[in-house]
Amino acid sequence: MTYTPTDYQPYDFANRRHIGPSPAEMEEMLATVGVDSLDALIAETVPEGIRQAAALDLGAPKSERELLWHMRAVAEKNKVLTSLIGQGYYGTITPPAIQRNILENPAWYTAYTPYQPEISQGRLEALLNFQTMISDLTGLEIANASLLDEATACAEAMTMARRISKSKAGAFFVDENCHPQNIAVVQTRARPLGIEVIVAAPEALEPGAVFGALFQYPGTYGHVRDFTVPIAALHEAGAVAIVAADPMALTLLKEPGAMGADIAVGSAQRFGVPMGYGGPHAAYMATKQAHARAMPGRLVGVSVDSLGNRAYRLALQTREQHIRREKATSNVCTAQALLAVMASMYAVFHGPDGLRAIAQRIHLKTAELAEGLRAAGFAVEPECFFDTITVEVGLFQRGVLQAAVREGLNLRRVGTTKVGISLDEATRPATLEAVWRAFGVSREAGGAEVGYVLPEGLIRESGYMDHPIFHMNRAETEMMRYMRRLADRDLALDRAMIPLGSCTMKLNAAAEMMPISWPEFADLHPFVPADQAEGYAELIHDLSETLCQITGYAGFSLQPNSGAQGEYAGLLTIDAWHRSRGDSTRKTCLIPVSAHGTNPASAQMVGWKVVPVKTAANGDIDVEDFRAKAEKHAGTLAACMITYPSTHGVFEETVREICEITHAQGGQVYIDGANMNAMVGLSRPGDLGGDVSHLNLHKTFCIPHGGGGPGMGPIGVKAHLLPFLPGHPQTGGQEGPVSGAPYGSPSILPISWAYCLMMGGEGLTQATRVAILNANYIAARLSGAYEVLYRGGRGRVAHECIIDTRPFADSAGVTVDDIAKRLIDCGFHAPTMSFPVAGTLMVEPTESETKAELDRFCDAMLAIREEIRAIEEGRMDAENNPLKHAPHTMEDLVRDWDRPYSREQGCFPPGAFRVDKYWPPVNRVDNVWGDRNLICSCPPMEAYAEAAE
Amino acid sequence: MTYTPTDYQPYDFANRRHIGPSPAEMEEMLATVGVDSLDALIAETVPEGIRQAAALDLGAPKSERELLWHMRAVAEKNKVLTSLIGQGYYGTITPPAIQRNILENPAWYTAYTPYQPEISQGRLEALLNFQTMISDLTGLEIANASLLDEATACAEAMTMARRISKSKAGAFFVDENCHPQNIAVVQTRARPLGIEVIVAAPEALEPGAVFGALFQYPGTYGHVRDFTVPIAALHEAGAVAIVAADPMALTLLKEPGAMGADIAVGSAQRFGVPMGYGGPHAAYMATKQAHARAMPGRLVGVSVDSLGNRAYRLALQTREQHIRREKATSNVCTAQALLAVMASMYAVFHGPDGLRAIAQRIHLKTAELAEGLRAAGFAVEPECFFDTITVEVGLFQRGVLQAAVREGLNLRRVGTTKVGISLDEATRPATLEAVWRAFGVSREAGGAEVGYVLPEGLIRESGYMDHPIFHMNRAETEMMRYMRRLADRDLALDRAMIPLGSCTMKLNAAAEMMPISWPEFADLHPFVPADQAEGYAELIHDLSETLCQITGYAGFSLQPNSGAQGEYAGLLTIDAWHRSRGDSTRKTCLIPVSAHGTNPASAQMVGWKVVPVKTAANGDIDVEDFRAKAEKHAGTLAACMITYPSTHGVFEETVREICEITHAQGGQVYIDGANMNAMVGLSRPGDLGGDVSHLNLHKTFCIPHGGGGPGMGPIGVKAHLLPFLPGHPQTGGQEGPVSGAPYGSPSILPISWAYCLMMGGEGLTQATRVAILNANYIAARLSGAYEVLYRGGRGRVAHECIIDTRPFADSAGVTVDDIAKRLIDCGFHAPTMSFPVAGTLMVEPTESETKAELDRFCDAMLAIREEIRAIEEGRMDAENNPLKHAPHTMEDLVRDWDRPYSREQGCFPPGAFRVDKYWPPVNRVDNVWGDRNLICSCPPMEAYAEAAE
Repeated sequence: MTYTPTDYQPYDFANRRHIGPSPAEMEEMLATVGVDSLDALIAETVPEGIRQAAALDLGAPKSERELLWHMRAVAEKNKVLTSLIGQGYYGTITPPAIQRNILENPAWYTAYTPYQPEISQGRLEALLNFQTMISDLTGLEIANASLLDEATACAEAMTMARRISKSKAGAFFVDENCHPQNIAVVQTRARPLGIEVIVAAPEALEPGAVFGALFQYPGTYGHVRDFTVPIAALHEAGAVAIVAADPMALTLLKEPGAMGADIAVGSAQRFGVPMGYGGPHAAYMATKQAHARAMPGRLVGVSVDSLGNRAYRLALQTREQHIRREKATSNVCTAQALLAVMASMYAVFHGPDGLRAIAQRIHLKTAELAEGLRAAGFAVEPECFFDTITVEVGLFQRGVLQAAVREGLNLRRVGTTKVGISLDEATRPATLEAVWRAFGVSREAGGAEVGYVLPEGLIRESGYMDHPIFHMNRAETEMMRYMRRLADRDLALDRAMIPLGSCTMKLNAAAEMMPISWPEFADLHPFVPADQAEGYAELIHDLSETLCQITGYAGFSLQPNSGAQGEYAGLLTIDAWHRSRGDSTRKTCLIPVSAHGTNPASAQMVGWKVVPVKTAANGDIDVEDFRAKAEKHAGTLAACMITYPSTHGVFEETVREICEITHAQGGQVYIDGANMNAMVGLSRPGDLGGDVSHLNLHKTFCIPHGGGGPGMGPIGVKAHLLPFLPGHPQTGGQEGPVSGAPYGSPSILPISWAYCLMMGGEGLTQATRVAILNANYIAARLSGAYEVLYRGGRGRVAHECIIDTRPFADSAGVTVDDIAKRLIDCGFHAPTMSFPVAGTLMVEPTESETKAELDRFCDAMLAIREEIRAIEEGRMDAENNPLKHAPHTMEDLVRDWDRPYSREQGCFPPGAFRVDKYWPPVNRVDNVWGDRNLICSCPPMEAYAEAAE
Repeated sequence: MTYTPTDYQPYDFANRRHIGPSPAEMEEMLATVGVDSLDALIAETVPEGIRQAAALDLGAPKSERELLWHMRAVAEKNKVLTSLIGQGYYGTITPPAIQRNILENPAWYTAYTPYQPEISQGRLEALLNFQTMISDLTGLEIANASLLDEATACAEAMTMARRISKSKAGAFFVDENCHPQNIAVVQTRARPLGIEVIVAAPEALEPGAVFGALFQYPGTYGHVRDFTVPIAALHEAGAVAIVAADPMALTLLKEPGAMGADIAVGSAQRFGVPMGYGGPHAAYMATKQAHARAMPGRLVGVSVDSLGNRAYRLALQTREQHIRREKATSNVCTAQALLAVMASMYAVFHGPDGLRAIAQRIHLKTAELAEGLRAAGFAVEPECFFDTITVEVGLFQRGVLQAAVREGLNLRRVGTTKVGISLDEATRPATLEAVWRAFGVSREAGGAEVGYVLPEGLIRESGYMDHPIFHMNRAETEMMRYMRRLADRDLALDRAMIPLGSCTMKLNAAAEMMPISWPEFADLHPFVPADQAEGYAELIHDLSETLCQITGYAGFSLQPNSGAQGEYAGLLTIDAWHRSRGDSTRKTCLIPVSAHGTNPASAQMVGWKVVPVKTAANGDIDVEDFRAKAEKHAGTLAACMITYPSTHGVFEETVREICEITHAQGGQVYIDGANMNAMVGLSRPGDLGGDVSHLNLHKTFCIPHGGGGPGMGPIGVKAHLLPFLPGHPQTGGQEGPVSGAPYGSPSILPISWAYCLMMGGEGLTQATRVAILNANYIAARLSGAYEVLYRGGRGRVAHECIIDTRPFADSAGVTVDDIAKRLIDCGFHAPTMSFPVAGTLMVEPTESETKAELDRFCDAMLAIREEIRAIEEGRMDAENNPLKHAPHTMEDLVRDWDRPYSREQGCFPPGAFRVDKYWPPVNRVDNVWGDRNLICSCPPMEAYAEAAE
């Protein structure tokens, strides 16, 4: 027998599926880089002094199939009951076509935030639909493209109110009928900002004493109140009125705008997004046009392209943290784009008629439920309601709740003698009967004639969602094609590398994504009894342990819903620790000027003063400047915030020194985990001296970017900080919560967990090593043509590299923008622009890209350099050239062509696929026009006709 | 309270999701058609005399959510054990990326058969990969693009052998080691053709006595034999050698080609396609180049387009039934394209190294299993094997099988004293231990050192899958993009209407598709004990009952895997009935000349003589000719085959008369159900006089076409024919089987069932009515510009209409092909060409298309008519015009343009989307070149380079 077994491992997820370059490709790449082995490259890149002592040990990696089995076993430990708990989370019915064509479609879930509008027109349209829907339902002029959750939206609304309020009062009023988690998150946010929060009944509001007030509509116990009078009183006192409103209720009820509200916030969860044990779902915020510039979060606006055609793009980016840093309106960065898209598609699917019908069914069922309970003698509050009632049960609270569980239902525990019930789209007649049985009432549903019990005067009188998009033909054939057309307009990871420095756009493997659609993960209410969520408990515990081992921290909080929120939560934790030691004056935060904009923005949110630290010529933190400033602020030093490896893409050798200086002055070290993809398995922030770090699970741990969210930014801390991690009214803890749900967005945690389980310790480490190889390969191939800024001591970059394009402004009049748009012609999303250095491109390929794709990108970049050279040498016109006209569209091709270069050169530069060419749907978008002519909802059809002319 | 509830029904699947036109659109369309109401239109279209008496009563329709609940409950009645039964069906691991991006992606599953090559390059490439893989693994020169299942592939190989055999012998030899269902289907096929089947041990083969022989490799009980010697002996006698081979085994074993085999057949199921309780999966056939023209089934070939670029298309279509009718090589029409694509992607994912590694693991585990059993004293056969062993257990057969079930395993019952075990890719060490426990053996897996026990001399020596496509980088990122690029090259229902007359390309709703991915439907072996498949039993029973009510038949067989196979099974049933009455001379079949080509092809397969019947001037069957021929052949009349409504798209009033004439002469009536989408709820073939009909579940009942399969062609029969329906060795019955599995392709039946459950009787009927409205709307809009051939007595068409394009050949030199290709420029798949009348287009929009899409199509057709007129009037050149150059590609746009019409006119004719334009990847494909230079596997990379020049 001459036959010998192959050593090929067909089910090795790390090396066969996740990591891009094959072993043979890696050999070639190492040769180009000029090292003998990957070990040698890593040795040259990652200083010995920061390497972790022991290899990761996460047990044997699982194959895709083993993973799915394991996930299935864990999922089955979650019990899916019908939750009528309400409190901001409701049953909903996701149309299967949306689940399949949006949530489960890589064209949607692998897209990045639409900062490059020309390759993002599809999701920009979907988000504009979301904004239009929210604006219409709330009766306010402008809505943003989503916020993290309703509770943080309330907190954002409070700080926005302070920005726009004419009142000088220092307190903020919160209606006691708000959902408890909304109140709690507002209180968390208020404390470090020195805002007094008054929680009381609406009747107790003293308008003169507050700069703003928040009401819940309908209230958490079901009350539906008209806030027109208190809002008028607030306005009289110069204060701002905020209404947290359920958009489903708004299809029947008078809208906040009609009451005079200045801001409306809420959650679009029940528009087709499963509860997911707390998230992710899209919160919203709407306000008056006058306050547009004060609004946090991303905002889609309408503009025109260079041919004058309509084009969408993100508007008013000057408000955002990446521009304004500590002066930003908020640290909001990642939002909930994918979920906002789902909610907007739900609205398109149903249209206003459908939404109204759904709301009516919910309401009538609630009326029938109440009628049945009242007929049996129960005291039901309130008199009028939309979908929520509260029933007095005296000593039988526990008995009723337990009987309900036996019926397969979760009801809400309210106080010690009441039970709350919220119905939803999924409620069936059998559900009503089961609720009645839990109360000992035997009754058949459908028997009683019930009418509407909405309060007089609060019936909605205005129309909404008149735009044709909400009145298109709603047959699934048409809807499927609409979703496909929008998807095709965008360029996502399913078609090309997205080499965004600091954003880590890596593979989101199909096996990782599958479990999130399972009912056991998707359909749990965040406040179900613990014994119904044992699968989640196992997942959360195991994932936390894994992250602890990877980072060297003692514990993790999975509550933060984004990296920025992680930073904020981490700084709050440090702040609480200082205060626990009586150190309440420590409010200074050292932050290098090269830091992500979210760093200073988060620091200001905890009431700290940001002291910038210089960068040395080589891009490292200027240690002497750091030391001087630390010493200068010694008595007040709260913390420093550093990123490791640095935002310049270098493993600084001085990181331990920075940590020691900070600790010596009584400060704590926050290490931003944005670049963790360069560290996993090689180095641990906890070992370097970090006290807190957040991880971006949507970067390093494979949660897809979803076109701008969801994200997850859990924080790890050293043991001394454990008691000060975010708590939650539902799960306890001495500190307040930063999110509405105790574990943030649990339904996407299976993705990161699956990644770790399939990679194993060795696989995770190899991924890091290949990420570094891929970046160094690009740096090597582009050297000579471009200058690569900032290298480590031995000439290596970390997992990303910065390409300097500043010289071309003088030499050829070519900007970094021109290069970014020209890359679209080559079939690429541009690298990160002008961060951390204006006028540069930061390239992060990640380990998931193959050599072929890296070469395609390098070929494109080199060809662009030649085009620049042609301008420099006068061979090409300085204005009329492919760079300035980029991106090229089919419109360019079909029109008369009077350019000094060929169609071929314009449209098919090196890198561009031939048959599989990606065509941007619009030419270069005019951002200035858009901000000058701010339109943030769907334009009328006539406007389309005009633009077409 | 002024508020009144809306009557909008948001969850009405029939009217909100499935049926395209909205009520308002229908009003406008009726006005265009010129009738007052849909009732009136139906009254004018469907003769009163053929209307069914009672409305369909299928109970209350379910919403999407109710449907999925119901499906979940039924699914849970299936028990998913680990089946080691083998016998042609094996556990496999579908890579999640393939499941999500192919099987669950509408871009792949809604595509049609690639008859229009310019819009099918993606799936043609995937199918060419399949052919290349099969050709390489079998060692034969040419492979087709799949057949229905291994058993029918065996039968097809037998009839092909008869066509190509030089032997005059009348018998066919079948190795007794063939899988029982293969033997049974061969016997079924042989009988009516007068072929004697000799089933015996290979040693008993007498080459001179047979025209061909079929061997199984490995044999059904695990034996791996070298057939080189018997094959040489067969060749000496002029006979043909066929080997049914497991492609997984062929990665390790000497290939059939190396043994001299003329034909190889088999199943690619275990290449990533779940067992699905029997199907669908792709069977294959490969042969020598010399026999290419004798091979049945679709064959993808390589050709060039009008610019000389490489292009794929279906080759040698002249072999096929739609061309050759009763002289065709086979009636094979629908095959298993989607499953062949999955299998080919599985091969691309793993490459030859991966496949070899997988096969080695299977083999080594089997060796370890056998070793453990032998060590415990069991007699294990055979000595050498690949993945299957047979164990002698004497009186303990039942005990071992039951113990296995308790261990979660299904083993195979072999004879009365043996147990068979086949391992597979999914077998784990724990599986081995469980098998041992079932035999009372306590042993740990991984303990013994086992080596290879493949027979000496049968180790494969040749390489395979050397083509670069099987050596591309196999990271999931790259694979995902490859699947996306291929998908984007094709035009499927997710982007545009596919108005193929007689093919009924309607919505395949997401909710209908979801259950087929569930393990409870996907992972059942076809021969599991009945108590493990109670969910399937319920589904099959309920779906059959529903189909009975819809058609007016007494019972259904779900065994046929395609419409053509349904015809064949139906004719066999009739034949058996005649024989049971001693009427064995009835072998004449009357078939109108306008019938589908499969009709005569199927008739010849049951050994009947086809007598064509004339068509009257109005397109109806010429009743007098029919009567004359029926009388002429009175004594031998077996049946007539008619299609209703006719293939001319008309409800013939004479259908009852035709049936009566047939019955009067002792014949049976076969009513082809291809046009059932015009009948459901309005008229029942059983009521009209039909004795048998097949339904195309992949047309009328929403199973997607999958790019050319899967399909399902169940047959309904009147009560007298029930005993003569296909039986199966596994489930009994007096007749032989026509498919390998008792219920054909059960895993796709949930789709059709879901459709019926969500539509309800009223919804199904309304769908039919709207299908008729949509066709009449197109007929109305195109009238004047085009002549619409064949209308009913009151000027109406049924659910499709025929557009006459013949006059343009003379008037402008424009062919129906030119129009079809020009429609691609407009963003459409062409209607059915030249059927049933050469030179015409048959348009069937189905009920799922909205008015907007119908209008887009009509606008395109009207614009094309104007282009023709311009040629007619000399305003446009007869050769150099957009019709002759169609379809236009990006290549055209980017090249120099020296045409007398503009780029704009060429590329953006009316109908074409602007931003969302579909670009065909190739220009018009040269079919003749391809057939002259037949290449049916992936061309070498150099060839690509040449073509690019």
